[in-house]
Amino acid sequence: MPKHQSIAPSKFEALAQQLQQQIAAGVLRPGDRLPSVRQICATRHLSPSTVFQAYYLLESRGLIHAVPRSGYFVAARAGGVLLAEPRTSDPQPGSQAVEVNDLICTILGSALARDIVPLGSAFLNPALFPLDRLRRALVSSTRRLKPWNMVDDLPPGNLRLRREIAKRYLRQGMAVDPDEIVLTNGAMEALNLCLGAVARPGDAVVVESPTFYIALQALQHLGLHAIEVPTHVREGIDLGRLAQVIELYHPKACWLMTTFQNPLGSLMPDTKKRDLVELLARHDIPLIEDDVYSELYEGKVAPLPAKAFDHRGLVLHCSSFSKCLAPGYRVGWAAPGRWVRDVQRLKVMTSLSGSIPAQAALAEYLQAGGYDHHLRGLRLSLQAQRASLFDAVTRNFPDGTLVVRPAGGYFMWLELPIGVDAMALYRAALAQGISIAPGPMFSARAEFQHHIRLTCGQRWDAVLERATRTLARLVSDSMHANSGVPPSI
Amino acid sequence: MPKHQSIAPSKFEALAQQLQQQIAAGVLRPGDRLPSVRQICATRHLSPSTVFQAYYLLESRGLIHAVPRSGYFVAARAGGVLLAEPRTSDPQPGSQAVEVNDLICTILGSALARDIVPLGSAFLNPALFPLDRLRRALVSSTRRLKPWNMVDDLPPGNLRLRREIAKRYLRQGMAVDPDEIVLTNGAMEALNLCLGAVARPGDAVVVESPTFYIALQALQHLGLHAIEVPTHVREGIDLGRLAQVIELYHPKACWLMTTFQNPLGSLMPDTKKRDLVELLARHDIPLIEDDVYSELYEGKVAPLPAKAFDHRGLVLHCSSFSKCLAPGYRVGWAAPGRWVRDVQRLKVMTSLSGSIPAQAALAEYLQAGGYDHHLRGLRLSLQAQRASLFDAVTRNFPDGTLVVRPAGGYFMWLELPIGVDAMALYRAALAQGISIAPGPMFSARAEFQHHIRLTCGQRWDAVLERATRTLARLVSDSMHANSGVPPSI
Repeated sequence: MPKHQSIAPSKFEALAQQLQQQIAAGVLRPGDRLPSVRQICATRHLSPSTVFQAYYLLESRGLIHAVPRSGYFVAARAGGVLLAEPRTSDPQPGSQAVEVNDLICTILGSALARDIVPLGSAFLNPALFPLDRLRRALVSSTRRLKPWNMVDDLPPGNLRLRREIAKRYLRQGMAVDPDEIVLTNGAMEALNLCLGAVARPGDAVVVESPTFYIALQALQHLGLHAIEVPTHVREGIDLGRLAQVIELYHPKACWLMTTFQNPLGSLMPDTKKRDLVELLARHDIPLIEDDVYSELYEGKVAPLPAKAFDHRGLVLHCSSFSKCLAPGYRVGWAAPGRWVRDVQRLKVMTSLSGSIPAQAALAEYLQAGGYDHHLRGLRLSLQAQRASLFDAVTRNFPDGTLVVRPAGGYFMWLELPIGVDAMALYRAALAQGISIAPGPMFSARAEFQHHIRLTCGQRWDAVLERATRTLARLVSDSMHANSGVPPSI
Repeated sequence: MPKHQSIAPSKFEALAQQLQQQIAAGVLRPGDRLPSVRQICATRHLSPSTVFQAYYLLESRGLIHAVPRSGYFVAARAGGVLLAEPRTSDPQPGSQAVEVNDLICTILGSALARDIVPLGSAFLNPALFPLDRLRRALVSSTRRLKPWNMVDDLPPGNLRLRREIAKRYLRQGMAVDPDEIVLTNGAMEALNLCLGAVARPGDAVVVESPTFYIALQALQHLGLHAIEVPTHVREGIDLGRLAQVIELYHPKACWLMTTFQNPLGSLMPDTKKRDLVELLARHDIPLIEDDVYSELYEGKVAPLPAKAFDHRGLVLHCSSFSKCLAPGYRVGWAAPGRWVRDVQRLKVMTSLSGSIPAQAALAEYLQAGGYDHHLRGLRLSLQAQRASLFDAVTRNFPDGTLVVRPAGGYFMWLELPIGVDAMALYRAALAQGISIAPGPMFSARAEFQHHIRLTCGQRWDAVLERATRTLARLVSDSMHANSGVPPSI
């Protein structure tokens, strides 16, 4: 039974609440420096970890941001940010056959060109990864590969690596057997195999609204119907609506990103994850949990996956090393609970096995230690990048823009002022050398027509600052164009 | 327009015909050494290459076999072998929803255990591959990988490698643009992507009878129906029956292994490949050409793929390095003709891209040269292994066994005497520590109940010799058991 090591919530939440009230009341104003952790510890008789937790919470709410070596500051628009949360979608009820058009491929392609400022990219800057150490692991593991490894390591894949992954589950209190783990060609293949294992053409599957476009494409490929359920920008899918949908439409499965959802950045709280698992268990509905961003959290405590609360083998947990360690290696995995044999079989049927050298290299890297050190650095980089992007957006974008600073990952979801068309903005931005991900990519019904997803996957610099300003100007221009008032430029 | 460089067929065919008549007439008897190439050149005023071609042809017909450093010998049962060809199947007409049972996975699993004599394995012994040189290529290519390669090399995959593959097509007279090539996670993924690009659930697809079980599983996965068409053990699918099937059932695609088919080992002659392509072009039916064994030919001239005769982009050619160079790397490709965009898109949707280090290593290996040298050695090894297995089978198996020595690849298809049940034989052999691939694996209707596929993927040794004898004894026992006569042992 997994157990979550959390510190007592009452103290840090109380402190966060007090500080939040001071910000709302204008006592602490945008740009003000907050008291240092040491000061608060001394004056309030709290432990440093309690104070840090409170600051992380405020940061996750977009109210304050950290400046390296300077401390915490009240965010530029913190006074209004609680009102500035993008609204939760209200998709039409019912299931929908999925027809994702060519647009997604075009948009993905445009975000890859190197001379484009990649605010719409799905990828982190590869310079954030420990490529030299990975290379050394690849070289030394390759030296040790025996001829028969080439056959023995066929599915379910390299045993050393599966053991290392199982150890990482164990550190979160989860007993996942290495034999439950199927190594895949990235999480994307894991998700597709899990979907193939639990659903048949014509079945309906619950997804979030908005949802990751690859989920939509996977549903389309397998002839499945999507049921889009409203999803909150901070806390994930609406469980009340999910319960209704289950009663009405008897979906065959749910495909959800419970932690740092793409595109919202939402983080479903642990208690809500437990409720989700219990709700699905009552109806015997499998949950395909897309969990590729969970290592990219803020603070000290890793969010648990929904699988941590699963006692019935109903959660098919999918993750990978692509977002946090080795993007080009394409090594992911599924821990598919009671569907492990089905997923193994589908893996054999569709691609036999993953690439042996890449699996061996990652096993070597993980065994050598240093992964957690790398992750700590990556988390701090992303935290700074999220803060910088959020700050740039709040400083530059016009009133009426709704945005929230996500608590992890590297995506930020913006609701643009009414009248701004995301597709027109996408084209205008691209003409200026800037990619963005327009909202309609994230819906089977092409909803979210005035939403965009921005990426903070690069170290913040003048180019990104300028691109954000340009984007903000294009939004303003578009508002004025639509309102009949000439743009100010 | 592709062009096949062949030497004049008349001379070597005439010589082969004469020698064959001498064997049939008993002038040359099983075990007799044939005249040396030098002798024949001198006496008949022929060039060595003509004589070699004649010998290769006779060898491909199972009439003679080479013994390294000793010359060519008349095969043990050459006198009767022309009659001993397994009969072409006559599957029931019509299409069939595919339900391949768990058996295939069980059988594949049992063939992998190291202490089992792998006569049923689908894999070559990895010691046949240049693992040291590959390792060096992996190391040196890894040193040169730049951070951005991790993103740039996403689909359609490493450009250097795609260029090397295009060059190999060019050497066969085929102009395949590097941009038509989509790198995949082995040929198996390429085949699945191509199938997904041309057919929708409910469509019917032509396969060979018998056919590669992975094709059956892929059809099942995508909800497709199989139309099994009789396939000759030497020359591949029956074009007359294929034409009838097209008129009757309007299949959406064909999935064929035109060269060294698994499990038959059949090699469709070039002229027949041309006829096949023309037949399909008249009906605008795409051909998914599974061509992973074509490098494993005998003699001097590589067989052409059907794609060489395609002028309309209707052939989706799939191959890989897994069978002839780097099994565990899982690098394959599709050259999908007019479906290149669809296949690229499906690749992005289902697994994003292949493993970058493996692709870069193979590009390095190919650019360094030495692949053809390796292939020549591998072809000679396999030729010797095929000869040894064929010889052992013809020496040991009881009368009524029908077998033909394939002209390439490493599979051999046996029709067992009437009354011998392949599944029972599979279980009896496994109990003796020997794997075989029973015939029912190769049909959507579990036909071929007294057929087996043997593999000569290992260097021939006493263990294999003994295993073949044991297998032959089990066949004999089973005949006697079924005939009511007590077994001889």
